[in-house]
Amino acid sequence: MKTDETFAPGLKGVIACETGISLLDTEQEKIIIRGHDLIDLSQGKTYADMVYLLLEGALPDDSERKKLEDKLKAHYDVPENVTEILKMLPEKTHAMDGQRTAISVLAGYDEKIDDRSTSVNKERAYELLGQLPMITVNSYRILHGKAPVKPDPELSYSANFLYMITGEKPTELQADIFDRSLLLYSEHEMPNSTFTSRVIASTNSDMYGALSGAVASLKGNLHGGANEAVMHMLNEADSVSGFEQLMKTKLENKEKIMGFGHRVYMNRMDPRALVMKESLRQLCDLKGDHTLLDMCEAGEEIMKDEKGLYPNLDYYAAPVYWMLGVPIPLYTPIFFSSRTAGLCAHIIEQHDNNRLFRPRVKYTGKELE
Amino acid sequence: MKTDETFAPGLKGVIACETGISLLDTEQEKIIIRGHDLIDLSQGKTYADMVYLLLEGALPDDSERKKLEDKLKAHYDVPENVTEILKMLPEKTHAMDGQRTAISVLAGYDEKIDDRSTSVNKERAYELLGQLPMITVNSYRILHGKAPVKPDPELSYSANFLYMITGEKPTELQADIFDRSLLLYSEHEMPNSTFTSRVIASTNSDMYGALSGAVASLKGNLHGGANEAVMHMLNEADSVSGFEQLMKTKLENKEKIMGFGHRVYMNRMDPRALVMKESLRQLCDLKGDHTLLDMCEAGEEIMKDEKGLYPNLDYYAAPVYWMLGVPIPLYTPIFFSSRTAGLCAHIIEQHDNNRLFRPRVKYTGKELE
Ligand SMILES: CC(C)(COP(=O)(O)OP(=O)(O)OC[C@H]1O[C@@H](n2cnc3c(N)ncnc32)[C@H](O)[C@@H]1OP(=O)(O)O)[C@@H](O)C(=O)NCCC(=O)NCCS
Ligand SMILES: CC(C)(COP(=O)(O)OP(=O)(O)OC[C@H]1O[C@@H](n2cnc3c(N)ncnc32)[C@H](O)[C@@H]1OP(=O)(O)O)[C@@H](O)C(=O)NCCC(=O)NCCS
Repeated sequence: MKTDETFAPGLKGVIACETGISLLDTEQEKIIIRGHDLIDLSQGKTYADMVYLLLEGALPDDSERKKLEDKLKAHYDVPENVTEILKMLPEKTHAMDGQRTAISVLAGYDEKIDDRSTSVNKERAYELLGQLPMITVNSYRILHGKAPVKPDPELSYSANFLYMITGEKPTELQADIFDRSLLLYSEHEMPNSTFTSRVIASTNSDMYGALSGAVASLKGNLHGGANEAVMHMLNEADSVSGFEQLMKTKLENKEKIMGFGHRVYMNRMDPRALVMKESLRQLCDLKGDHTLLDMCEAGEEIMKDEKGLYPNLDYYAAPVYWMLGVPIPLYTPIFFSSRTAGLCAHIIEQHDNNRLFRPRVKYTGKELE
Repeated sequence: MKTDETFAPGLKGVIACETGISLLDTEQEKIIIRGHDLIDLSQGKTYADMVYLLLEGALPDDSERKKLEDKLKAHYDVPENVTEILKMLPEKTHAMDGQRTAISVLAGYDEKIDDRSTSVNKERAYELLGQLPMITVNSYRILHGKAPVKPDPELSYSANFLYMITGEKPTELQADIFDRSLLLYSEHEMPNSTFTSRVIASTNSDMYGALSGAVASLKGNLHGGANEAVMHMLNEADSVSGFEQLMKTKLENKEKIMGFGHRVYMNRMDPRALVMKESLRQLCDLKGDHTLLDMCEAGEEIMKDEKGLYPNLDYYAAPVYWMLGVPIPLYTPIFFSSRTAGLCAHIIEQHDNNRLFRPRVKYTGKELE
């Protein structure tokens, strides 16, 4: 029996696969998405552009963008039984678990479930992206005893998503900021959920299965679940001094503070967080109340001083969603909806050029008797 | 940008984590499960013993085994809405997708969903193992327009499982062979589905989520789905010469033949397959018809000669299930039910000593513009 194997816990630094989709380029300090800088894209492009870029390989022109929006809207409706099933889930079901169940159920409606060709996979991805606002919002609403809502096809894809969430037509600024959050969340190289979906897809399993696993992965608070955890902390503290106190107590208790740290950018701020921080500032300016921003900045200072750790996207996405009137249990499901664009691109890439993921272990158990 | 990274496609040979649960020991040519040889265990121990060994760390004595069986039986029932939801799935839903949906739904019923302690995780595992026969059999039955069946607590756990599947009380030999198949399927180091479940659990996500991902992984025909694919080939051929012809045609077309090959035992027969082959022989002897065994042996010869490849467990489990009267769409769901014992042991181990899985990539896409 071999017992001298060395390994990288959590596969830290291990190359899992080749991809043409994205890279956290730590040398140039850029997030590259199919040849574009994600932060540049966030200053002028929309989530719909990202979807196109991720699935078609290049940014769309105006008519391509229009066609894409129309295609997503054509898929807004979900089968009635999906809604009925959501109504039958226990009330205390987590919205992420509702979302996972809905995606799992959709598999049964796919007439081409066994087809893994690029073209069918792509159409499937667009259909799912079209359906996700209804699934996401309604799995939350139904679980909270509210009537399901219907989309408004007059609004853009992301403005409609926000409208369905809050029940109010968003202002242009609100719609822009929400769109930007979706854009920033849409793709980020090989985080746990993307890895999960590729590992699953590598057995020749289908997109619904790979996405079901990814929702489950994203739910964890070391991953997507961090945005909800951040907002709970901010609400618990409710003031700058209260937040400083809360963080210090947590640090004394050696607790992890959600919203800080990242496997790849451990020693600097997640560049996406900076963009969301600016959006938070805009929302605070408009409201004439900077409490949330001040709290977040105070928290940032403490973590830099005490731990040398910096905020990740979830840290600033959380208060932005709060200011936009998004209910907390929807933060992670929205992250998942947005990320579905990137996940589908990865699943398609995996199916197109597949090798089964099957690693080994370092055995630390009892020897043979 | 780094472009000179080397990597092992499919993480072949890469150590993903430490585990005390099991090892494919290629030097001793043994499958070690917590210090025991799996093949030895299959000659005298039962699936219930395996469950105990996997979750408690040692083989049970008689009273411990009895308590375990009682505990599993106490959890036979599933919430009524799980059955109702299965009834609402589209008819053509794959039984694996039904199973995945049911497990996903169960998350909402767990009063301690946020508790990841070893003791709560273990109780959760026993509860799920208790529920799986009903979920598995009924998700198939309901999807095929048949009335749900109820378990018979007078029978042992695995005899009842087979009884629910076929509707007939199994003979002792049938029950023994079915139990042996579950034992052999229960744990096997770090195949794709086990890896999937650990990757998901490593975000602090819960057992239902990790298992939902594992069902999705196992569904693929490069993994668990192979057992159903094997049976379809055997049925399509229907005779020794027909099977030889079918295999030769597939090989000429450069198709993969399901049921052959394995990442770890590429150059020899999966030792579990040999045990199932013996079971197949027993069933053929009893029936006085050796066609299936003869076909399988002919296929074995061809693959050895033409490709130097050997059967894996799925190759012989498939005809055994056929002889036991198991409907083909249940082969992979049964594999999953059995493997849940090992998966839960791995999820618990991951939660107990966690590090987020987050690898990197080799970027092959466009450079920054
Ligand atoms: C993202 C994260 C999981 C990366 O994990 P990782 O690469 O495995 O690194 P580790 O968790 O081992 O962290 C390395 C060290 O920094 C500390 N650390 C990392 N993130 C921390 C945090 N948010 N709060 C406090 N300490 C933290 C760890 O405790 C560890 O210290 P140690 O070496 O003394 O044990 C981790 O930073 C984290 O848990 N962050 C909080 C959750 C979160 O915001 N997730 C969203 C990510 S986008
Ligand atoms: C199990 C399996 C996925 C292992 O895969 P892997 O370690 O990634 O190895 P590969 O698939 O790259 O196979 C290596 C070579 O053997 C060939 N090969 C492997 N399994 C084969 C099979 N079942 N039929 C035909 N050729 C096979 C491959 O085509 C490849 O040949 P190449 O190098 O000329 O391209 C693979 O053997 C397989 O697909 N088997 C069939 C599915 C199956 O039975 N799965 C259940 C496993 S328990």
